Amino acid sequence: MLKQQPEPLDLMFQALADPTRRRMVERLSRGPASVSELAEPFQMSLPAVVQHLQVLEQSGLVTTEKVGRVRTCTIDTGALSMAEKWINDRRIGWERRLDRLGAFLDALPGSSDKADK
Amino acid sequence: MLKQQPEPLDLMFQALADPTRRRMVERLSRGPASVSELAEPFQMSLPAVVQHLQVLEQSGLVTTEKVGRVRTCTIDTGALSMAEKWINDRRIGWERRLDRLGAFLDALPGSSDKADK
Repeated sequence: MLKQQPEPLDLMFQALADPTRRRMVERLSRGPASVSELAEPFQMSLPAVVQHLQVLEQSGLVTTEKVGRVRTCTIDTGALSMAEKWINDRRIGWERRLDRLGAFLDALPGSSDKADK
Repeated sequence: MLKQQPEPLDLMFQALADPTRRRMVERLSRGPASVSELAEPFQMSLPAVVQHLQVLEQSGLVTTEKVGRVRTCTIDTGALSMAEKWINDRRIGWERRLDRLGAFLDALPGSSDKADK
């Protein structure tokens, strides 16, 4: 059996499921940073930071570019938007359903009498 | 060393990192469902479905309630909102930064001349 390719959202949500990686995204949302700037607040080895960064890069949430000897990391809002939109669509879907249910209940005979009391 | 407790967002994003679980959340965003209704579209055993459901329940994204012999699953928009807000805050943070950068560049001497041409 063929191993299924992970979907883009699998990789994005997986990348966000780790507190260190979320803190990295948080840092990058305030502006681009070099790998060593990104590593600074963490008590972990540089290779461990690079590994987290690779997960973020593979998910598309972060892009990196090497100029000379410095690799600069930048957040990708397109990927962030995609993950956000998926959640938003589900939430809105459910809230619309609740609104329709509310409207239906309001329209039931006698329901306005009850609401007035 | 104490093992760190997972943060709520760890569990939520982890839960959303699987395509089957996302399809379950998608189904539940259209209304509550029993476990067997939820299992119906999937070609997997009921225990496998229950396992995915447990991950969703532990993350807070889904709540379940058993009445008689039927367990009904419902989406929790509070948890969905929390995950959505985290992503949104990062994205907005970055976009504001870009706006400020744009305003700064516009204010540089000679930049309006260039824009007019």
